[in-house]
Amino acid sequence: MSGGADARSEGRRIAVLLEYDGTAYRGSQYQENGPSIQSELESALRNLTGDVVRVSFAGRTDAGVHALGQVAAFDTSSRLAPPEFVTGLNHFLAPDVAVRDARVVGAEFDPRRDARGRLYRYRIANRAVRPALDRGRAWHVPKPLDVPATQRAAQALEGPHDFAAFAGAYEGRTTRTVERCEVSERCDGGVVVEMEAKSFLPHQVRRTVGPLVEVGLGRMTQEELVALLEAARPASAGPAAPAGGLYLVRVAYDGPVFGSGDWNGRD
Amino acid sequence: MSGGADARSEGRRIAVLLEYDGTAYRGSQYQENGPSIQSELESALRNLTGDVVRVSFAGRTDAGVHALGQVAAFDTSSRLAPPEFVTGLNHFLAPDVAVRDARVVGAEFDPRRDARGRLYRYRIANRAVRPALDRGRAWHVPKPLDVPATQRAAQALEGPHDFAAFAGAYEGRTTRTVERCEVSERCDGGVVVEMEAKSFLPHQVRRTVGPLVEVGLGRMTQEELVALLEAARPASAGPAAPAGGLYLVRVAYDGPVFGSGDWNGRD
Repeated sequence: MSGGADARSEGRRIAVLLEYDGTAYRGSQYQENGPSIQSELESALRNLTGDVVRVSFAGRTDAGVHALGQVAAFDTSSRLAPPEFVTGLNHFLAPDVAVRDARVVGAEFDPRRDARGRLYRYRIANRAVRPALDRGRAWHVPKPLDVPATQRAAQALEGPHDFAAFAGAYEGRTTRTVERCEVSERCDGGVVVEMEAKSFLPHQVRRTVGPLVEVGLGRMTQEELVALLEAARPASAGPAAPAGGLYLVRVAYDGPVFGSGDWNGRD
Repeated sequence: MSGGADARSEGRRIAVLLEYDGTAYRGSQYQENGPSIQSELESALRNLTGDVVRVSFAGRTDAGVHALGQVAAFDTSSRLAPPEFVTGLNHFLAPDVAVRDARVVGAEFDPRRDARGRLYRYRIANRAVRPALDRGRAWHVPKPLDVPATQRAAQALEGPHDFAAFAGAYEGRTTRTVERCEVSERCDGGVVVEMEAKSFLPHQVRRTVGPLVEVGLGRMTQEELVALLEAARPASAGPAAPAGGLYLVRVAYDGPVFGSGDWNGRD
Protein backbone atom coordinates (compact mmCIF):
# COMPACT_ATOMS: atom_id res chain seq x y z
CA MET A 1 0.00 0.00 0.00
CA SER A 2 2.53 2.57 1.06
CA GLY A 3 6.12 2.61 -0.11
CA GLY A 4 6.08 2.54 -3.90
CA ALA A 5 3.60 5.34 -4.55
CA ASP A 6 5.12 7.55 -1.90
CA ALA A 7 8.77 6.85 -2.59
CA ARG A 8 9.01 10.22 -4.29
CA SER A 9 7.99 12.01 -1.10
CA GLU A 10 10.75 10.32 0.89
CA GLY A 11 13.39 12.43 -0.75
CA ARG A 12 11.60 15.78 -0.47
CA ARG A 13 13.65 18.85 0.30
CA ILE A 14 11.83 21.63 2.13
CA ALA A 15 12.88 25.27 2.35
CA VAL A 16 11.62 27.39 5.23
CA LEU A 17 11.57 31.16 5.71
CA LEU A 18 12.64 32.00 9.26
CA GLU A 19 12.24 34.96 11.58
CA TYR A 20 14.15 35.06 14.83
CA ASP A 21 15.26 37.18 17.73
CA GLY A 22 18.93 36.16 17.98
CA THR A 23 19.44 37.54 21.51
CA ALA A 24 19.33 34.17 23.27
CA TYR A 25 21.28 32.22 20.62
CA ARG A 26 24.94 31.61 19.90
CA GLY A 27 24.24 32.20 16.21
CA SER A 28 22.50 30.46 13.32
CA GLN A 29 24.92 27.55 13.10
CA TYR A 30 25.41 24.76 15.60
CA GLN A 31 27.71 25.78 18.48
CA GLU A 32 29.06 23.63 21.28
CA ASN A 33 28.71 26.29 23.94
CA GLY A 34 25.04 27.12 23.69
CA PRO A 35 21.79 27.02 21.76
CA SER A 36 21.77 27.92 18.07
CA ILE A 37 18.98 28.53 15.59
CA GLN A 38 20.12 25.33 13.89
CA SER A 39 19.79 23.20 17.03
CA GLU A 40 16.42 24.80 17.80
CA LEU A 41 15.09 24.08 14.30
CA GLU A 42 16.51 20.55 14.15
CA SER A 43 14.97 19.79 17.53
CA ALA A 44 11.56 21.09 16.39
CA LEU A 45 11.84 18.94 13.24
CA ARG A 46 12.65 15.89 15.34
CA ASN A 47 9.62 16.57 17.53
CA LEU A 48 7.35 17.15 14.54
CA THR A 49 8.48 14.42 12.14
CA GLY A 50 10.76 12.06 14.05
CA ASP A 51 13.44 12.82 11.46
CA VAL A 52 16.97 13.47 12.64
CA VAL A 53 18.15 15.89 9.96
CA ARG A 54 20.76 18.48 9.28
CA VAL A 55 19.50 21.92 8.38
CA SER A 56 21.49 24.29 6.17
CA PHE A 57 21.14 28.08 6.06
CA ALA A 58 21.38 30.81 3.43
CA GLY A 59 23.41 33.06 5.68
CA ARG A 60 25.47 32.48 8.78
CA THR A 61 24.34 34.90 11.47
CA ASP A 62 26.43 35.51 14.60
CA ALA A 63 25.36 35.36 18.23
CA GLY A 64 22.78 38.09 18.90
CA VAL A 65 22.05 38.79 15.21
CA HIS A 66 18.39 38.66 14.18
CA ALA A 67 16.56 37.56 11.05
CA LEU A 68 13.34 38.56 9.37
CA GLY A 69 13.87 36.33 6.33
CA GLN A 70 16.59 33.74 6.87
CA VAL A 71 16.21 30.71 4.56
CA ALA A 72 16.92 27.17 5.72
CA ALA A 73 16.53 23.84 3.93
CA PHE A 74 16.39 20.20 4.96
CA ASP A 75 15.44 16.78 3.59
CA THR A 76 12.54 14.95 5.08
CA SER A 77 10.75 11.64 4.83
CA SER A 78 7.64 13.18 6.38
CA ARG A 79 4.50 13.41 4.27
CA LEU A 80 3.39 16.65 5.89
CA ALA A 81 2.30 19.35 3.47
CA PRO A 82 4.28 22.62 3.58
CA PRO A 83 1.57 24.53 5.52
CA GLU A 84 1.64 21.73 8.08
CA PHE A 85 5.38 22.27 8.46
CA VAL A 86 4.67 25.95 9.19
CA THR A 87 2.04 25.21 11.83
CA GLY A 88 3.81 22.19 13.29
CA LEU A 89 7.26 23.74 13.54
CA ASN A 90 5.84 26.92 15.08
CA HIS A 91 4.20 24.73 17.70
CA PHE A 92 7.52 23.18 18.72
CA LEU A 93 9.88 26.13 18.19
CA ALA A 94 10.72 28.53 21.03
CA PRO A 95 8.72 31.81 20.98
CA ASP A 96 11.74 33.74 19.67
CA VAL A 97 11.93 31.67 16.47
CA ALA A 98 9.12 31.43 13.90
CA VAL A 99 8.71 29.76 10.51
CA ARG A 100 6.96 32.22 8.19
CA ASP A 101 6.63 29.97 5.15
CA ALA A 102 7.61 26.53 3.86
CA ARG A 103 7.93 25.24 0.29
CA VAL A 104 9.01 22.06 -1.45
CA VAL A 105 12.18 22.78 -3.43
CA GLY A 106 14.30 20.72 -5.82
CA ALA A 107 16.60 18.09 -4.38
CA GLU A 108 19.58 20.17 -5.49
CA PHE A 109 18.46 23.39 -3.79
CA ASP A 110 21.22 24.81 -1.60
CA PRO A 111 20.06 27.88 0.34
CA ARG A 112 23.57 29.30 0.66
CA ARG A 113 25.12 28.48 -2.71
CA ASP A 114 22.00 29.26 -4.76
CA ALA A 115 21.39 32.66 -3.16
CA ARG A 116 21.91 35.46 -5.64
CA GLY A 117 21.29 38.31 -3.22
CA ARG A 118 21.15 39.13 0.45
CA LEU A 119 19.72 42.17 2.17
CA TYR A 120 20.90 43.11 5.65
CA ARG A 121 19.55 45.93 7.80
CA TYR A 122 21.41 47.55 10.68
CA ARG A 123 19.46 49.61 13.21
CA ILE A 124 21.02 52.44 15.22
CA ALA A 125 19.20 54.08 18.15
CA ASN A 126 20.64 57.58 17.78
CA ARG A 127 19.39 59.26 20.95
CA ALA A 128 20.90 60.58 24.13
CA VAL A 129 19.39 57.93 26.37
CA ARG A 130 19.78 54.16 26.02
CA PRO A 131 16.65 52.50 24.60
CA ALA A 132 14.63 50.25 26.92
CA LEU A 133 12.36 48.66 24.31
CA ASP A 134 15.07 48.33 21.63
CA ARG A 135 17.78 46.99 23.92
CA GLY A 136 19.57 44.20 22.04
CA ARG A 137 17.78 45.23 18.84
CA ALA A 138 19.60 48.41 17.90
CA TRP A 139 23.03 49.92 18.56
CA HIS A 140 22.75 52.81 20.99
CA VAL A 141 24.81 55.74 19.63
CA PRO A 142 24.16 58.63 22.06
CA LYS A 143 25.82 61.49 20.15
CA PRO A 144 23.95 62.94 17.18
CA LEU A 145 25.08 61.50 13.86
CA ASP A 146 25.71 63.65 10.81
CA VAL A 147 23.42 61.48 8.69
CA PRO A 148 24.13 63.19 5.32
CA ALA A 149 27.88 62.57 5.89
CA THR A 150 27.22 58.87 6.55
CA GLN A 151 24.99 58.75 3.45
CA ARG A 152 27.78 60.11 1.24
CA ALA A 153 30.35 57.77 2.80
CA ALA A 154 28.02 54.79 2.37
CA GLN A 155 27.64 55.57 -1.31
CA ALA A 156 31.44 55.51 -1.72
CA LEU A 157 31.36 51.87 -0.60
CA GLU A 158 28.95 50.74 -3.30
CA GLY A 159 30.14 48.77 -6.30
CA PRO A 160 32.83 46.11 -6.76
CA HIS A 161 35.72 46.60 -4.34
CA ASP A 162 38.27 44.64 -2.36
CA PHE A 163 36.56 44.82 1.04
CA ALA A 164 39.44 43.25 3.03
CA ALA A 165 39.54 46.29 5.33
CA PHE A 166 35.85 45.83 6.18
CA ALA A 167 35.90 42.15 7.13
CA GLY A 168 37.14 39.85 9.82
CA ALA A 169 39.85 37.29 9.16
CA TYR A 170 39.15 35.66 5.80
CA GLU A 171 41.22 33.30 3.70
CA GLY A 172 40.24 33.89 0.13
CA ARG A 173 39.22 36.45 -2.37
CA THR A 174 37.96 39.57 -0.59
CA THR A 175 36.42 41.24 -3.63
CA ARG A 176 32.65 41.65 -3.43
CA THR A 177 30.08 43.79 -5.17
CA VAL A 178 27.95 45.85 -2.81
CA GLU A 179 24.86 46.63 -4.87
CA ARG A 180 23.48 49.05 -2.31
CA CYS A 181 24.77 50.68 0.87
CA GLU A 182 22.18 53.16 2.04
CA VAL A 183 21.67 55.13 5.23
CA SER A 184 18.22 56.47 6.07
CA GLU A 185 16.77 58.36 8.99
CA ARG A 186 13.54 57.24 10.64
CA CYS A 187 11.02 59.55 12.25
CA ASP A 188 11.64 58.02 15.69
CA GLY A 189 15.28 59.13 15.77
CA GLY A 190 16.45 55.77 14.48
CA VAL A 191 19.05 55.51 11.74
CA VAL A 192 19.05 52.49 9.46
CA VAL A 193 21.83 51.17 7.23
CA GLU A 194 20.80 48.74 4.51
CA MET A 195 23.31 46.71 2.52
CA GLU A 196 22.60 44.47 -0.43
CA ALA A 197 25.03 42.13 -2.20
CA LYS A 198 25.17 38.70 -3.77
CA SER A 199 27.38 37.68 -0.87
CA PHE A 200 29.26 39.34 1.99
CA LEU A 201 32.57 38.70 3.72
CA PRO A 202 32.41 37.60 7.37
CA HIS A 203 31.20 40.49 9.58
CA GLN A 204 31.21 42.80 6.57
CA VAL A 205 27.99 44.61 7.45
CA ARG A 206 28.93 45.22 11.10
CA ARG A 207 32.47 46.20 10.06
CA THR A 208 31.00 48.68 7.57
CA VAL A 209 28.52 50.19 10.03
CA GLY A 210 31.29 50.74 12.63
CA PRO A 211 33.36 53.12 10.45
CA LEU A 212 30.22 54.73 8.96
CA VAL A 213 29.27 55.75 12.50
CA GLU A 214 32.82 57.09 12.99
CA VAL A 215 32.21 59.28 9.94
CA GLY A 216 28.81 60.33 11.31
CA LEU A 217 30.43 61.35 14.60
CA GLY A 218 33.10 63.38 12.80
CA ARG A 219 35.90 61.09 13.97
CA MET A 220 36.77 59.90 10.47
CA THR A 221 36.49 61.69 7.14
CA GLN A 222 35.06 60.16 4.01
CA GLU A 223 38.54 60.45 2.45
CA GLU A 224 40.00 58.38 5.29
CA LEU A 225 37.26 55.78 4.83
CA VAL A 226 37.96 55.56 1.09
CA ALA A 227 41.72 55.34 1.78
CA LEU A 228 41.06 52.35 4.05
CA LEU A 229 38.97 50.73 1.32
CA GLU A 230 41.70 51.29 -1.26
CA ALA A 231 44.56 50.09 0.95
CA ALA A 232 42.53 46.90 1.59
CA ARG A 233 44.55 45.88 4.65
CA PRO A 234 42.60 43.11 6.44
CA ALA A 235 40.33 44.30 9.27
CA SER A 236 41.89 47.79 9.23
CA ALA A 237 38.62 49.77 9.12
CA GLY A 238 38.11 49.40 12.87
CA PRO A 239 35.82 47.48 15.17
CA ALA A 240 32.52 45.91 14.20
CA ALA A 241 29.20 47.41 15.26
CA PRO A 242 27.43 45.31 17.96
CA ALA A 243 25.55 42.19 16.84
CA GLY A 244 22.16 43.21 18.29
CA GLY A 245 21.53 45.88 15.62
CA LEU A 246 21.86 43.50 12.66
CA TYR A 247 18.98 41.82 10.80
CA LEU A 248 19.16 39.41 7.86
CA VAL A 249 16.11 40.74 6.03
CA ARG A 250 15.84 38.81 2.78
CA VAL A 251 17.59 36.27 0.59
CA ALA A 252 16.92 36.19 -3.15
CA TYR A 253 17.12 33.27 -5.56
CA ASP A 254 16.94 33.02 -9.33
CA GLY A 255 13.43 31.65 -9.18
CA PRO A 256 10.95 32.72 -6.54
CA VAL A 257 11.12 30.25 -3.66
CA PHE A 258 8.58 31.87 -1.34
CA GLY A 259 5.77 33.56 -3.23
CA SER A 260 6.61 35.87 -6.10
CA GLY A 261 8.85 38.86 -6.49
CA ASP A 262 12.59 39.35 -6.62
CA TRP A 263 13.00 39.24 -2.88
CA ASN A 264 11.54 36.57 -0.65
CA GLY A 265 9.63 37.43 2.47
CA ARG A 266 8.46 40.79 3.64
CA ASP A 267 9.89 43.02 6.29
CA MET B 1 27.67 76.21 55.52
CA SER B 2 25.04 73.95 54.08
CA GLY B 3 21.43 73.92 55.18
CA GLY B 4 20.11 77.46 54.97
CA ALA B 5 21.20 78.37 51.48
CA ASP B 6 20.14 75.02 50.11
CA ALA B 7 16.95 74.63 52.05
CA ARG B 8 15.01 75.39 48.88
CA SER B 9 16.54 72.42 47.11
CA GLU B 10 15.47 70.04 49.86
CA GLY B 11 11.88 70.25 48.72
CA ARG B 12 12.50 69.84 45.00
CA ARG B 13 10.03 67.79 43.03
CA ILE B 14 11.42 66.09 39.93
CA ALA B 15 9.41 64.73 37.00
CA VAL B 16 10.92 62.04 34.80
CA LEU B 17 9.91 60.78 31.37
CA LEU B 18 10.08 56.97 31.31
CA GLU B 19 10.35 54.33 28.64
CA TYR B 20 9.92 50.68 29.56
CA ASP B 21 9.39 47.19 28.29
CA GLY B 22 6.67 45.99 30.65
CA THR B 23 7.13 42.28 29.88
CA ALA B 24 9.00 41.44 33.08
CA TYR B 25 6.93 43.67 35.42
CA ARG B 26 3.70 43.27 37.32
CA GLY B 27 2.69 46.77 36.20
CA SER B 28 3.65 50.36 36.87
CA GLN B 29 2.42 50.43 40.48
CA TYR B 30 3.88 48.57 43.42
CA GLN B 31 2.68 44.96 43.64
CA GLU B 32 3.30 42.42 46.35
CA ASN B 33 3.75 39.50 43.99
CA GLY B 34 6.56 40.74 41.81
CA PRO B 35 8.64 43.61 40.47
CA SER B 36 6.93 46.80 39.33
CA ILE B 37 8.18 49.86 37.50
CA GLN B 38 7.60 51.76 40.72
CA SER B 39 9.78 49.45 42.81
CA GLU B 40 12.47 49.49 40.10
CA LEU B 41 12.50 53.30 39.96
CA GLU B 42 12.36 53.75 43.74
CA SER B 43 15.25 51.33 44.14
CA ALA B 44 17.33 53.21 41.52
CA LEU B 45 16.57 56.48 43.34
CA ARG B 46 17.67 54.96 46.63
CA ASN B 47 20.92 53.82 45.02
CA LEU B 48 21.54 57.17 43.36
CA THR B 49 20.52 59.61 46.11
CA GLY B 50 20.07 57.62 49.31
CA ASP B 51 16.50 58.97 49.43
CA VAL B 52 13.70 56.60 50.30
CA VAL B 53 10.86 58.11 48.31
CA ARG B 54 7.47 57.30 46.86
CA VAL B 55 7.11 57.78 43.13
CA SER B 56 3.76 58.63 41.55
CA PHE B 57 2.79 58.00 37.94
CA ALA B 58 0.68 59.72 35.30
CA GLY B 59 -0.95 56.50 34.20
CA ARG B 60 -1.35 53.11 35.78
CA THR B 61 -0.11 50.46 33.35
CA ASP B 62 -0.91 46.77 33.85
CA ALA B 63 1.47 43.84 33.89
CA GLY B 64 3.06 43.46 30.45
CA VAL B 65 2.04 46.93 29.21
CA HIS B 66 4.84 49.10 27.82
CA ALA B 67 5.56 52.82 27.88
CA LEU B 68 7.36 55.20 25.56
CA GLY B 69 6.46 58.30 27.57
CA GLN B 70 5.17 57.49 31.05
CA VAL B 71 5.58 60.40 33.47
CA ALA B 72 6.60 59.90 37.10
CA ALA B 73 7.33 62.41 39.86
CA PHE B 74 9.04 62.31 43.23
CA ASP B 75 10.43 64.63 45.89
CA THR B 76 14.13 64.62 46.58
CA SER B 77 16.65 66.18 48.91
CA SER B 78 19.42 65.43 46.43
CA ARG B 79 21.24 68.37 44.83
CA LEU B 80 21.76 66.51 41.57
CA ALA B 81 20.88 68.48 38.46
CA PRO B 82 18.14 67.02 36.23
CA PRO B 83 20.61 65.71 33.58
CA GLU B 84 22.45 63.95 36.41
CA PHE B 85 19.20 62.26 37.38
CA VAL B 86 18.88 61.00 33.79
CA THR B 87 22.42 59.59 33.67
CA GLY B 88 22.45 58.35 37.26
CA LEU B 89 19.05 56.64 37.18
CA ASN B 90 19.84 55.00 33.85
CA HIS B 91 22.97 53.62 35.44
CA PHE B 92 21.01 51.93 38.24
CA LEU B 93 17.81 51.00 36.39
CA ALA B 94 17.40 47.58 34.76
CA PRO B 95 18.04 47.55 30.98
CA ASP B 96 14.30 47.32 30.25
CA VAL B 97 13.57 50.67 31.96
CA ALA B 98 15.08 53.99 30.88
CA VAL B 99 14.68 57.61 31.95
CA ARG B 100 14.49 59.78 28.82
CA ASP B 101 14.34 63.17 30.51
CA ALA B 102 14.11 64.81 33.95
CA ARG B 103 12.88 68.26 34.96
CA VAL B 104 12.32 70.21 38.13
CA VAL B 105 8.58 70.83 38.56
CA GLY B 106 6.50 72.77 41.04
CA ALA B 107 5.90 71.29 44.48
CA GLU B 108 2.24 70.88 43.59
CA PHE B 109 2.82 68.98 40.35
CA ASP B 110 0.80 65.75 40.32
CA PRO B 111 1.56 63.67 37.22
CA ARG B 112 -1.81 61.90 37.30
CA ARG B 113 -4.19 64.66 38.35
CA ASP B 114 -2.54 67.39 36.26
CA ALA B 115 -2.50 65.38 33.04
CA ARG B 116 -4.79 66.86 30.43
CA GLY B 117 -4.27 64.20 27.80
CA ARG B 118 -3.01 60.70 27.31
CA LEU B 119 -2.09 58.93 24.10
CA TYR B 120 -2.08 55.13 23.99
CA ARG B 121 -1.01 52.98 21.07
CA TYR B 122 -2.03 49.37 20.53
CA ARG B 123 -0.03 47.20 18.09
CA ILE B 124 -1.53 44.23 16.27
CA ALA B 125 0.64 41.77 14.31
CA ASN B 126 -1.88 40.84 11.64
CA ARG B 127 -0.15 38.00 9.87
CA ALA B 128 -0.65 34.27 9.51
CA VAL B 129 2.38 33.29 11.56
CA ARG B 130 3.14 34.32 15.15
CA PRO B 131 5.83 37.01 15.33
CA ALA B 132 9.20 36.05 16.82
CA LEU B 133 10.66 39.54 17.19
CA ASP B 134 7.41 41.19 18.31
CA ARG B 135 6.41 38.49 20.80
CA GLY B 136 5.04 40.27 23.88
CA ARG B 137 5.01 43.56 21.96
CA ALA B 138 2.05 43.11 19.66
CA TRP B 139 -1.15 41.06 19.65
CA HIS B 140 -0.93 38.28 17.11
CA VAL B 141 -4.18 38.20 15.08
CA PRO B 142 -3.63 35.55 12.39
CA LYS B 143 -6.71 36.11 10.24
CA PRO B 144 -6.73 39.14 7.90
CA LEU B 145 -8.50 42.13 9.39
CA ASP B 146 -10.93 44.25 7.40
CA VAL B 147 -9.07 47.43 8.34
CA PRO B 148 -11.54 49.91 6.75
CA ALA B 149 -14.34 48.30 8.81
CA THR B 150 -12.32 48.74 12.01
CA GLN B 151 -11.56 52.34 11.01
CA ARG B 152 -15.26 53.15 10.64
CA ALA B 153 -16.11 51.40 13.90
CA ALA B 154 -13.29 53.22 15.72
CA GLN B 155 -14.67 56.55 14.55
CA ALA B 156 -18.06 55.69 16.02
CA LEU B 157 -16.39 55.49 19.44
CA GLU B 158 -14.99 59.01 19.32
CA GLY B 159 -16.51 61.82 21.35
CA PRO B 160 -18.16 61.92 24.77
CA HIS B 161 -19.88 58.66 25.65
CA ASP B 162 -20.67 56.45 28.57
CA PHE B 163 -17.94 53.84 28.04
CA ALA B 164 -19.13 51.43 30.77
CA ALA B 165 -19.33 48.61 28.20
CA PHE B 166 -15.67 49.14 27.29
CA ALA B 167 -14.14 49.05 30.76
CA GLY B 168 -13.42 46.68 33.59
CA ALA B 169 -15.17 46.98 36.93
CA TYR B 170 -15.34 50.65 37.87
CA GLU B 171 -17.18 52.43 40.67
CA GLY B 172 -17.92 55.89 39.44
CA ARG B 173 -18.83 57.96 36.48
CA THR B 174 -18.08 56.05 33.27
CA THR B 175 -18.45 58.96 30.89
CA ARG B 176 -15.25 59.91 29.09
CA THR B 177 -14.40 61.90 25.98
CA VAL B 178 -12.33 59.98 23.46
CA GLU B 179 -10.70 62.71 21.36
CA ARG B 180 -9.32 60.27 18.85
CA CYS B 181 -9.73 56.57 18.10
CA GLU B 182 -7.87 55.79 14.93
CA VAL B 183 -6.83 52.60 13.19
CA SER B 184 -3.96 52.66 10.71
CA GLU B 185 -2.19 50.04 8.67
CA ARG B 186 1.59 49.83 8.60
CA CYS B 187 3.63 48.65 5.64
CA ASP B 188 4.95 45.64 7.56
CA GLY B 189 1.48 44.11 7.98
CA GLY B 190 1.05 45.66 11.39
CA VAL B 191 -2.17 47.38 12.40
CA VAL B 192 -2.08 50.15 14.99
CA VAL B 193 -4.91 51.58 17.08
CA GLU B 194 -4.27 54.97 18.69
CA MET B 195 -6.56 56.42 21.34
CA GLU B 196 -6.34 59.85 22.87
CA ALA B 197 -8.36 61.20 25.82
CA LYS B 198 -7.96 63.34 28.89
CA SER B 199 -8.44 60.18 30.93
CA PHE B 200 -9.49 56.59 30.36
CA LEU B 201 -11.47 54.05 32.35
CA PRO B 202 -9.55 50.99 33.65
CA HIS B 203 -8.60 48.73 30.71
CA GLN B 204 -10.53 50.97 28.33
CA VAL B 205 -7.99 50.82 25.51
CA ARG B 206 -7.59 47.03 25.60
CA ARG B 207 -11.36 46.60 25.98
CA THR B 208 -11.88 48.80 22.93
CA VAL B 209 -9.27 47.04 20.79
CA GLY B 210 -10.83 43.62 21.57
CA PRO B 211 -14.25 44.42 20.00
CA LEU B 212 -12.63 46.46 17.18
CA VAL B 213 -10.77 43.29 16.18
CA GLU B 214 -14.07 41.39 16.36
CA VAL B 215 -15.44 43.89 13.85
CA GLY B 216 -12.32 43.52 11.70
CA LEU B 217 -12.78 39.74 11.65
CA GLY B 218 -16.45 40.08 10.67
CA ARG B 219 -17.66 38.58 13.94
CA MET B 220 -19.38 41.78 15.06
CA THR B 221 -21.02 44.53 13.03
CA GLN B 222 -20.50 48.21 13.62
CA GLU B 223 -24.17 48.43 14.55
CA GLU B 224 -23.69 45.81 17.25
CA LEU B 225 -20.66 47.71 18.55
CA VAL B 226 -22.63 50.96 18.71
CA ALA B 227 -25.53 49.16 20.42
CA LEU B 228 -23.11 47.94 23.12
CA LEU B 229 -21.84 51.49 23.56
CA GLU B 230 -25.37 52.85 23.89
CA ALA B 231 -26.60 50.13 26.27
CA ALA B 232 -23.56 50.92 28.49
CA ARG B 233 -23.78 47.68 30.43
CA PRO B 234 -20.51 47.28 32.38
CA ALA B 235 -17.84 45.16 30.66
CA SER B 236 -20.33 43.92 28.05
CA ALA B 237 -18.20 44.66 24.98
CA GLY B 238 -16.16 41.48 25.41
CA PRO B 239 -12.69 40.52 26.51
CA ALA B 240 -9.71 42.85 26.61
CA ALA B 241 -6.92 42.60 24.04
CA PRO B 242 -3.68 41.20 25.53
CA ALA B 243 -1.46 43.53 27.57
CA GLY B 244 1.68 43.08 25.45
CA GLY B 245 0.34 45.15 22.53
CA LEU B 246 -0.33 48.28 24.59
CA TYR B 247 1.99 51.32 24.87
CA LEU B 248 1.49 54.49 26.90
CA VAL B 249 2.97 56.87 24.35
CA ARG B 250 2.57 60.38 25.75
CA VAL B 251 1.05 62.37 28.59
CA ALA B 252 0.20 66.02 28.07
CA TYR B 253 0.05 68.84 30.63
CA ASP B 254 -1.15 72.40 30.44
CA GLY B 255 2.37 73.73 30.36
CA PRO B 256 5.18 71.87 28.65
CA VAL B 257 6.96 69.71 31.24
CA PHE B 258 9.53 68.07 28.98
CA GLY B 259 10.67 70.36 26.16
CA SER B 260 8.08 72.19 24.13
CA GLY B 261 5.01 71.17 22.22
CA ASP B 262 1.58 69.95 23.19
CA TRP B 263 2.68 66.40 23.79
CA ASN B 264 5.66 65.39 25.89
CA GLY B 265 8.22 62.96 24.60
CA ARG B 266 8.58 61.55 21.17
CA ASP B 267 7.64 58.17 19.84
